[in-house]
Amino acid sequence: MAKVAIVGSGFIGRAWAISFARAGHDVRMWDQSRAATGGARDYISGVLDDLASNDLLRGQTVDAVLDRITVVAELEEALAEAVHIQENTPENLDVKREVFSLIDALAGPQAVIASSTSALLPSKFTDHLEGRHRCLVVHPINPPYLIPAAEVVPAPWTSTETVERTSAFLVDAGHAPLVMQRELDGFIMNRLQGALLEEAFRLVADGYASVEDVDIGIRDGLALRWSFMGPFETIDLNAPGGVRDYVERYQTIYSNIFPQMLRRVDWAGEVMTTVEADRRKRLPKASLGDRQVWRDRRLMALAAHKKKSDREFGK
Amino acid sequence: MAKVAIVGSGFIGRAWAISFARAGHDVRMWDQSRAATGGARDYISGVLDDLASNDLLRGQTVDAVLDRITVVAELEEALAEAVHIQENTPENLDVKREVFSLIDALAGPQAVIASSTSALLPSKFTDHLEGRHRCLVVHPINPPYLIPAAEVVPAPWTSTETVERTSAFLVDAGHAPLVMQRELDGFIMNRLQGALLEEAFRLVADGYASVEDVDIGIRDGLALRWSFMGPFETIDLNAPGGVRDYVERYQTIYSNIFPQMLRRVDWAGEVMTTVEADRRKRLPKASLGDRQVWRDRRLMALAAHKKKSDREFGK
Repeated sequence: MAKVAIVGSGFIGRAWAISFARAGHDVRMWDQSRAATGGARDYISGVLDDLASNDLLRGQTVDAVLDRITVVAELEEALAEAVHIQENTPENLDVKREVFSLIDALAGPQAVIASSTSALLPSKFTDHLEGRHRCLVVHPINPPYLIPAAEVVPAPWTSTETVERTSAFLVDAGHAPLVMQRELDGFIMNRLQGALLEEAFRLVADGYASVEDVDIGIRDGLALRWSFMGPFETIDLNAPGGVRDYVERYQTIYSNIFPQMLRRVDWAGEVMTTVEADRRKRLPKASLGDRQVWRDRRLMALAAHKKKSDREFGK
Repeated sequence: MAKVAIVGSGFIGRAWAISFARAGHDVRMWDQSRAATGGARDYISGVLDDLASNDLLRGQTVDAVLDRITVVAELEEALAEAVHIQENTPENLDVKREVFSLIDALAGPQAVIASSTSALLPSKFTDHLEGRHRCLVVHPINPPYLIPAAEVVPAPWTSTETVERTSAFLVDAGHAPLVMQRELDGFIMNRLQGALLEEAFRLVADGYASVEDVDIGIRDGLALRWSFMGPFETIDLNAPGGVRDYVERYQTIYSNIFPQMLRRVDWAGEVMTTVEADRRKRLPKASLGDRQVWRDRRLMALAAHKKKSDREFGK
């Protein structure tokens, strides 16, 4: 299989390494800090054990996947012959510009160079590069070995071939790429999340709903169908004649609400006292770490469930 | 157990009947149209079979639950001794006002009278009633026997006791009530859904994303965590110091996007051509019915999965 380079071995880099090695690729991971890569393989080995016990390794053994991940000491060694390079350094524009200069200078012409950034537009850190046509953003939701969606975001100069190759590469690795036509702040997922959160904070700030009410409405309500259909298919199936029929019947409800969405509430302002008090009452700060472990286990069980349901009922 | 009356035996009325009978209540269902109630028990029996095979009947047999549902010929008979009355007539203000007048006049003083309306504020159809203090909205997401969330919406004159009794009644029946402090257009869930859809339609209208990209971003991305945590708990666990830390780190991303959310796209306008073409390419109109059956099976499998995960890992 292809050679893949992971630059930066924090949580996101490690998670990508797992996903790409599971797909059969030969993964080389490099970090400027030796300390960072030190525990990487042990950490990865633990995750692979969990994935194996949820039947999420494509029928492979832990060792088979782990054997495909090598931590290397030199960046050149990681990049040699790589066809896909996934960069995961800190979300700092100067750092990204420098790292991309380095990678573009060292990588062979066959390589696509992708950044995991969630916040920076690709045009901001690739404009100066000779190989800027092969650069783009591939933004995951963490952890990508459990959450298939990944945003593919081209800069204005990213070639169509680069976008297409990257998209195919991701699909082959079991991902579900969202291929943007052009870059935009927040990409797609953070914009959708942001729109929903703006209304959630407004409802709490205005005293209509509690933090827990909002979470109930999503986790015990809307997100059940969304988790296997998405919002457009959901409304397409919610009227006898499909999505156009739905909009003809119900748009008035939404357009009447819209004028109340033009006001932004500062999330860090007064409402944060309410939000934080509610969250800390349910989950003390000292328990955040345990709850993250719980989240990852539930996410893994859900991924296994979806895989089973896809087989049983179809996607 | 308590006696429950279902007024109106369409899909929502039948679904409530299933949920309340499963909880052990003696359910009496009435509809002004005899034709509507005709097939109701056969339909319910089929749903109960599916629920039983997914272990979603609280360990009871289909017959045990079905035996608790009686279709009655007279409204008085349905309401007699009922402690909870769930109204499910058409979303028409005049109809609701008339039906509520009738129910309030006939129901004993022990009864709470709840409407399933998704669009009408309770103050609009209960202001004229002697028993308006015992009237409110209990709005489900269909079908309530699979989706626990239900919005409890008081009118300004609804008594605290009515709200509290209704909330406890719902919890006892396995529901997850969102208890609004006061009424508001769209309640909570349609407002959250609306906010997300507004951004989804904007992204498609502006050519940044396809309909399918949006659905991927939710069903293979954001909604996975949302489906067992909700959006507030999700961000609470996405920064080392919890929700305040998250907002301090990332609010700028969202506040920068917000000005682009002040423009509304008419969902039925030009964008609908794109949305409908994309949906109909993936799912021809003739297949909408089959796909709804698929949706209900997936939803049932997901409900069973969540129940199992709640037991195994905790809620």
